[in-house]
Amino acid sequence: MTLRQIGEEKLLTRILPHLPANRRVIVRAGDDCAVVRFRGAGDLLLLKSDCVVEGVHFTRKTPAPAAGWKAMMRPLSDFAAMSGVPEFALITIVISGDKQESWLRQFYRGLNRAAKRFNVAIVGGETGDTNGSTAVSVSVAGYAEPRRWVGRNGGKMNDDLFVTGELGGAIRLRHLNFVPRLAEARWLTRFFDIHAMIDLSDGLGSDLPRLARASNLSFVVNEKALPIAPGCSAQQAISDGEDYELLFALSPRDRAKLEASWKRKFPTIRLSCIGRLVRRTTSHDRTIPPGYVHFQQRR
Amino acid sequence: MTLRQIGEEKLLTRILPHLPANRRVIVRAGDDCAVVRFRGAGDLLLLKSDCVVEGVHFTRKTPAPAAGWKAMMRPLSDFAAMSGVPEFALITIVISGDKQESWLRQFYRGLNRAAKRFNVAIVGGETGDTNGSTAVSVSVAGYAEPRRWVGRNGGKMNDDLFVTGELGGAIRLRHLNFVPRLAEARWLTRFFDIHAMIDLSDGLGSDLPRLARASNLSFVVNEKALPIAPGCSAQQAISDGEDYELLFALSPRDRAKLEASWKRKFPTIRLSCIGRLVRRTTSHDRTIPPGYVHFQQRR
Repeated sequence: MTLRQIGEEKLLTRILPHLPANRRVIVRAGDDCAVVRFRGAGDLLLLKSDCVVEGVHFTRKTPAPAAGWKAMMRPLSDFAAMSGVPEFALITIVISGDKQESWLRQFYRGLNRAAKRFNVAIVGGETGDTNGSTAVSVSVAGYAEPRRWVGRNGGKMNDDLFVTGELGGAIRLRHLNFVPRLAEARWLTRFFDIHAMIDLSDGLGSDLPRLARASNLSFVVNEKALPIAPGCSAQQAISDGEDYELLFALSPRDRAKLEASWKRKFPTIRLSCIGRLVRRTTSHDRTIPPGYVHFQQRR
Repeated sequence: MTLRQIGEEKLLTRILPHLPANRRVIVRAGDDCAVVRFRGAGDLLLLKSDCVVEGVHFTRKTPAPAAGWKAMMRPLSDFAAMSGVPEFALITIVISGDKQESWLRQFYRGLNRAAKRFNVAIVGGETGDTNGSTAVSVSVAGYAEPRRWVGRNGGKMNDDLFVTGELGGAIRLRHLNFVPRLAEARWLTRFFDIHAMIDLSDGLGSDLPRLARASNLSFVVNEKALPIAPGCSAQQAISDGEDYELLFALSPRDRAKLEASWKRKFPTIRLSCIGRLVRRTTSHDRTIPPGYVHFQQRR
């Protein structure tokens, strides 16, 4: 069977459980970042690699600095999803030797600008040769306090589900210049008991079922409450993907306080209660059509 | 100018110094691993990414488990070069959706076996789609004690230069099944004051000048002392590359003790004093012809 027929997610759930772990590992594959213990440090070490590929995540026409920005910001968005703080990044670029140096310089300019935005130090870079599309992997290390990191799997029954910002239409421009919700995530876990969180990279239609499944729950969504971006349909808001907004679960007891505090702290960023987590039943799992899946649908 | 015309090393020295660092960074690009401080931990955090590309580091005919083994062992060899201990790995695989799942499973089997050999936990995996050659980036995090990590730049004038194992001919087979010198490196820094160390991935002809330059010195090599692998010429020992042996610098005062202890501890592994570090002069820098350089010469 080819990889495309299987799809990335199934593939990784087949392969990864058989890989070696050890006692220092708290969370491995299956969440936004890996979470591990490091040499007696009070805080936990978070690790994440993410790659972008020309023809999939950006095109030949994408300005190189914008592609670099995106390559850095995608793993940083995974840090936001866990309320982590990114600190160090390593860059691996697989690229044809025929490409112009100027392209790579411009690409690094974008990486650089994105890293600086969040005080991330780029501590290593490597290039490899390819005959195919340019591919860039960015590996990020950082931290989260033991009581402050948030996984996907902590959702509780009847939790309210919140989404930051607006959904849909990111592919037109926003996917190249988004700012991951790191500050918002850190604020959330400073003042609220966030039960579960994920970033919306593949679209609400894929990422909400993931969060619910990880929490062993199902969900109901109030379609009228979806924060649809101007000019988009509900369908686009659900399945376009690349929103890089936060989706999180919170006890309904905390809802009023959250909504009031959020408005004061982030007056220009929408926060929408889009539904809630409910007891697991198979029918609910199909409420939302899925977002795109790697290997099955290209951009 | 194209990337091939420039060459990887020059390229990175042009781009990387302009990237953001911060006070937590002790060593960044330019050594085998990055070395950083992490959240008050007594030990230092070491980070390294390395990638292998089909058609460059392995071929379509390479058994998938052997390619996976190599992909993992390359960055672990960089840990050996700094006397670090690898602990966690993230895998990024950029691969065509047309590839068979069985290939990827077998590749992961090799990654897995290599990781287990050194108690490294694979904590994350990601795949991306490409129309070109398969490329795999392995990012490793681990530690070294503040007094025990070794960089390239600590060589002192008149230091003896030692090489472990034998050099040359690795491309025939050894490049696919080598075992990085992690145990040997840790033993060396436990009992000896190693001034500078590097792993021989690009060949002695490239890596020795790197160590010498980083230490702001030059070198002399006694060609008769080179540990040439059976069936190889001196030229091959110097420039084949992919030996993944250690090259290190040590005070001549410690030589006799090292040679005696090594023989007892590692009776089956050769240890050769191949030359010494000397005052920097331009003429010495050309004693050894260079190994291969990415973009300029393909394998």
